[in-house]
Amino acid sequence: MTTLNHRIVLASRPQGGISPANFRLEAVEIAPPGPGEVLVRTRFLSLDPYMRMRMNDAKSYAAPQNLDEVMVGGTVGEVVASNHPNFAPGDAVAGGGGWQEFFTADARALRKVDRALPLEAYLGPAGGPGLTAWHGVYNIIEPKAGETILVSAAAGAVGSVVGQLAKAGGARAIGVAGGPDKCRHVVDDLGFDACVDYKSKSFAADLARAVPNGIDGIFENVGGTVMDTAMRHLNPFSRIALCGLVSGGYNADPMPIADATILLTQRVLLKGFILSDHLDIFPRARADLAARVASGQLKWHRTVAHGIANAPAAFIGMLGGANLGKQLVDLG
Amino acid sequence: MTTLNHRIVLASRPQGGISPANFRLEAVEIAPPGPGEVLVRTRFLSLDPYMRMRMNDAKSYAAPQNLDEVMVGGTVGEVVASNHPNFAPGDAVAGGGGWQEFFTADARALRKVDRALPLEAYLGPAGGPGLTAWHGVYNIIEPKAGETILVSAAAGAVGSVVGQLAKAGGARAIGVAGGPDKCRHVVDDLGFDACVDYKSKSFAADLARAVPNGIDGIFENVGGTVMDTAMRHLNPFSRIALCGLVSGGYNADPMPIADATILLTQRVLLKGFILSDHLDIFPRARADLAARVASGQLKWHRTVAHGIANAPAAFIGMLGGANLGKQLVDLG
Repeated sequence: MTTLNHRIVLASRPQGGISPANFRLEAVEIAPPGPGEVLVRTRFLSLDPYMRMRMNDAKSYAAPQNLDEVMVGGTVGEVVASNHPNFAPGDAVAGGGGWQEFFTADARALRKVDRALPLEAYLGPAGGPGLTAWHGVYNIIEPKAGETILVSAAAGAVGSVVGQLAKAGGARAIGVAGGPDKCRHVVDDLGFDACVDYKSKSFAADLARAVPNGIDGIFENVGGTVMDTAMRHLNPFSRIALCGLVSGGYNADPMPIADATILLTQRVLLKGFILSDHLDIFPRARADLAARVASGQLKWHRTVAHGIANAPAAFIGMLGGANLGKQLVDLG
Repeated sequence: MTTLNHRIVLASRPQGGISPANFRLEAVEIAPPGPGEVLVRTRFLSLDPYMRMRMNDAKSYAAPQNLDEVMVGGTVGEVVASNHPNFAPGDAVAGGGGWQEFFTADARALRKVDRALPLEAYLGPAGGPGLTAWHGVYNIIEPKAGETILVSAAAGAVGSVVGQLAKAGGARAIGVAGGPDKCRHVVDDLGFDACVDYKSKSFAADLARAVPNGIDGIFENVGGTVMDTAMRHLNPFSRIALCGLVSGGYNADPMPIADATILLTQRVLLKGFILSDHLDIFPRARADLAARVASGQLKWHRTVAHGIANAPAAFIGMLGGANLGKQLVDLG
């Protein structure tokens, strides 16, 4: 019996809201690796908000995901067969395998990872989300000891690292998250100084109380009301690392900022960024993050779905905020 | 007969719109300078948009202008009497004399200026407006040859310098101004590559036509529709120097940015700034700007009112866009 590769392709682009019907599960034969290629069995698939943006056929920083092609995505797995001297069966590798159980890749697109960490850490705090946090914190916000740093989507894979890095540097870390359970996690498990529930009716007042000395840096994943409310507390010379605007619902509607006057009067630095522009930081940042994960200094949490068939539902759930920490699919 | 000092004080704060009734003309005796002080007769008073913000009793970067006190403002003039060894009668000095004919100041608050330039140049391209342009262009936008730089309020004291500095560095300079006369001035007299009339019904289409390669830098003096329309053309890694938001009408209403998504997808750097935070650039920037004015490379235009009694009307006119280039009051 031949082992088949089960994979999820983009069947249609979301019109209005995303739905399971936008995805299609397929089973295809596994091709042997060509010259210089490596065949990998994926162990964990990473689900990330940026994928939703790529499902639209709109001009963005990334090319749109093609219809009827495998959904793109970061993965960790094990080499099954290799036509390249740098890789041998059994090696643990990180790469962009997408939403499928097996993939072949040019060896240059794979990176060997150290089994000293759980493999899925390379999709979380020691991978893209960690690197995203690292860049925004150290290269844009540059928190100083005693400053107050606020991060939205604080219980997520990126936000959870942002606050811990800020705190490790002596800043006060304030999270914004949806619901009391996530807020408790952010404070009790991740060690933030406070977390404010944006779903609460008293959000604006709660946020004001959490930042008595104002805000010196915002790591923004959400935009909209959360960002506007936080901006009202910005101190002079504060910084905004603009990483995501997920509250926009991923449609084509413009996402306003309520008051630009604050950016002027408080002399704010705002910088939009995308991790893939900053490959130069990867070696140093990866080493730093892996060391913090290994030592236990950097806490992280996983929400794990099982089996490729469940990836669409897990993805839609994550977009709705159902996950705590890194959303993964365990492909076994 | 004693010479009196005629001065304008803030009589009341604007409610709704600004009006001449917000100002009061007074005549007072001139006090002799105290120890370490200098008595100056003002030759030119500078009128600037920031003064309007200070007339509000609102939290901003500058303390509000006090009621019944002389309106603050930059001035150039001549020393009449001096109790400080560095200054002698007849010296030309720049300082913050405010809206009045004479003032006494601590000698440390005055700066001797070179009569090689017309005195009023130190209130224009070789003074605050020039320095503001210089900082935004060189320290925030950093235009490269071949890039497209857009500046709003291009016919004003700051905007006119912005475009010329960008152009001198090999960039394409595009202005936005109100009305065909100002636009003609910006292109024909100041040498910009193009100027778009924001009052025209075809503004958005005209702007699109003027920036076929997109926009790499915006020097923003205006905000609102002008800024939102320009932002739609931002290229990846573009920069916005946020210097003013005068279209907000100087009231307390928030001034939105229509679409923050652009800041993210185009990885934009936006920086709000205020000249007084950047005293470190003054020596180098002043020397550079004065040399460009002296050589005739940097063109500038004045709109001059005469007599302190006419300062309020000139100021209100300037806020409405009646001036071309630097708005001055000649105190004779």
